[in-house]
Amino acid sequence: MASVEFIKDLCTPALVIDLDKVNRNAEAMRERFQKLGVQLRPHMKTHKTLECADIMTGGSRRCIVVSTLAEASFYADNGYDDILYAYPLPFDKVERCAELSERLCLFHILVDNRLALQELKKRPLKQGKVWKVWMKLDCDNGRAGVPHCDPAALKLAQEVWDTAGVELTGIYAHCGNTYACQGEEQIKAVAQETTAITLQFMEKLKAAGIHTPKSSIGSTPSCSHPVPDMAMLSEVHPGNYVFYDVQQSLVGSCRLEDVAVRVLTRVIGHYPHRNQLLVDCGWTALSHDGGGRLPTGYAIIEGHPELKLLSMTQEHGRVEPISGKLDFKQFPLGSLLTLMPYHACATAMMHPVYFVHSNGTIIDTWKPTRGW
Amino acid sequence: MASVEFIKDLCTPALVIDLDKVNRNAEAMRERFQKLGVQLRPHMKTHKTLECADIMTGGSRRCIVVSTLAEASFYADNGYDDILYAYPLPFDKVERCAELSERLCLFHILVDNRLALQELKKRPLKQGKVWKVWMKLDCDNGRAGVPHCDPAALKLAQEVWDTAGVELTGIYAHCGNTYACQGEEQIKAVAQETTAITLQFMEKLKAAGIHTPKSSIGSTPSCSHPVPDMAMLSEVHPGNYVFYDVQQSLVGSCRLEDVAVRVLTRVIGHYPHRNQLLVDCGWTALSHDGGGRLPTGYAIIEGHPELKLLSMTQEHGRVEPISGKLDFKQFPLGSLLTLMPYHACATAMMHPVYFVHSNGTIIDTWKPTRGW
Repeated sequence: MASVEFIKDLCTPALVIDLDKVNRNAEAMRERFQKLGVQLRPHMKTHKTLECADIMTGGSRRCIVVSTLAEASFYADNGYDDILYAYPLPFDKVERCAELSERLCLFHILVDNRLALQELKKRPLKQGKVWKVWMKLDCDNGRAGVPHCDPAALKLAQEVWDTAGVELTGIYAHCGNTYACQGEEQIKAVAQETTAITLQFMEKLKAAGIHTPKSSIGSTPSCSHPVPDMAMLSEVHPGNYVFYDVQQSLVGSCRLEDVAVRVLTRVIGHYPHRNQLLVDCGWTALSHDGGGRLPTGYAIIEGHPELKLLSMTQEHGRVEPISGKLDFKQFPLGSLLTLMPYHACATAMMHPVYFVHSNGTIIDTWKPTRGW
Repeated sequence: MASVEFIKDLCTPALVIDLDKVNRNAEAMRERFQKLGVQLRPHMKTHKTLECADIMTGGSRRCIVVSTLAEASFYADNGYDDILYAYPLPFDKVERCAELSERLCLFHILVDNRLALQELKKRPLKQGKVWKVWMKLDCDNGRAGVPHCDPAALKLAQEVWDTAGVELTGIYAHCGNTYACQGEEQIKAVAQETTAITLQFMEKLKAAGIHTPKSSIGSTPSCSHPVPDMAMLSEVHPGNYVFYDVQQSLVGSCRLEDVAVRVLTRVIGHYPHRNQLLVDCGWTALSHDGGGRLPTGYAIIEGHPELKLLSMTQEHGRVEPISGKLDFKQFPLGSLLTLMPYHACATAMMHPVYFVHSNGTIIDTWKPTRGW
């Protein structure tokens, strides 16, 4: 594969990344928050590669969020620092978190319950270091975090604040509820609400004599359409924006032309008796994310809005027209089709290598880290 | 992780494989077809590891099926031979197939159209070798293959037979339509039909003076409940049976106690206000296969039929009771839950390493091959 010059000559299925779009998406996000005076702490979970992290951090190799300790170690091994492991502290990984905290200048963890704090107390850090703890606040997203309206939120912050060997570094909220939005206006409403709740909580902390320097909210939709009040936050932590995907375009985060990731696939069979063709992209190359509920099924087939990726098995995809008869001559055996994935994070996860191109010429290959 | 002795001490999420069950499943399948006098050619797609392949082949390292050329190369590199690449010949991979054909004693490919044959003719094999070609017959499964009732089927077989440098090695059918069955009786009906169609086609070939030695059908459901007529086939090619999964138990291929694969996960959060807990298993560790349509959601939570894995994001799973109030004391933070996956192939695909145990003691780690 090393000798392949153009993406059109790659063996399929293959994940291809448009570097120009990646650069544009990264630059737009950086500029957006430079203007607002808010620190961008990009999330690595979508791509999990060193090269894309370098683009997202503008080469600083500082100030990132990760979703797994495998990512944290991968980036630490490659000279990254100021890494926030934005996941409710898993009790089986306290020692690994301690080692990263002792090894790096800044390794941040997240807690949303008192027992996590007890676990930290059992493992004081060496070298005079303190645990850098962010408290996760649930601003009506309904996943991890202490509900913002629960008195337990302030109590937990107080307890972190009062605990020796532990520093309350910040308040962290993920506005994943933006994914239920349709369009910029709805996204901005959720962004505004999450920002307001977070800032109110910061005020409550201050009133209680608890001084935590940082507040961070994030999600690609809200950070693609920030509201002015977000300028009062310290940080934001979007991730998917560097690739975007069909889902993000439907939510309203981006235009379809901003989506930087594709899966290349080839036609491997013609079946006129059932008006279908087969392509060499199954769920191993795309994932089942989105559930096939797009009008075009599991993906958008670029340049062919009349086609639907109807179903997938492990290595096969069934394609048929949304209506009418398929013109098989348009899709000779061996010809390429280009799929725009519903969910870039889920699709990227299926690939051991990403082919990075500019205008179709391959200029790099990126290898993601995997595991936990 | 190397020092972990018991699966209960693994960092989660983790894929664990019960070696005793794997051995039993493999042995049962071998015995079943030894009795019938039919060659078992196990499919590697579910696990893609060397160790499990050794178990399935009884150590012979011969006579396997693969779903990708990455698998073919991986097994060839590890001393395997007699490898059938059971996938409609992709025109971008003819050269790689030729190299494997020249390198191995037996490398088989699959065709279901005339153009594929043209591609083979363009690349005659060196060293006096011939292409070993199986023709894929669609016995009403509706994926790849020439429909059995289409006159094109006999014509294609004739053309393969007549082509210099190409050998018609066999007729191959995948009865994936067994996955729509409920129970042994329905499975046997599909197995019987697929067998009958395949054998009738073999007779047609003979009548036309086309002598192809082999016929193979397969799928885990049909091979778990073979019908007597399958004794007249040369080979069968099931794969999933070595692990089995919840889907297979619902189809009727196995009992739940035969399922050899689990995902271990831990409780990472309690959210009484919404009657939910979070576990550290998202779609990166389980896949979205099955669409969450089980009464227990995306998986069965072992020992807890009252719980449902309701939804997953990248690294989080939401668990709630099917009805009533969750007793959080039963599920302390950090405690283990054991998930039986809906689809073992899809779940295994998400893991870079499998932890292999006997009665909870880890005895090996298996690393699958990935990519295409």
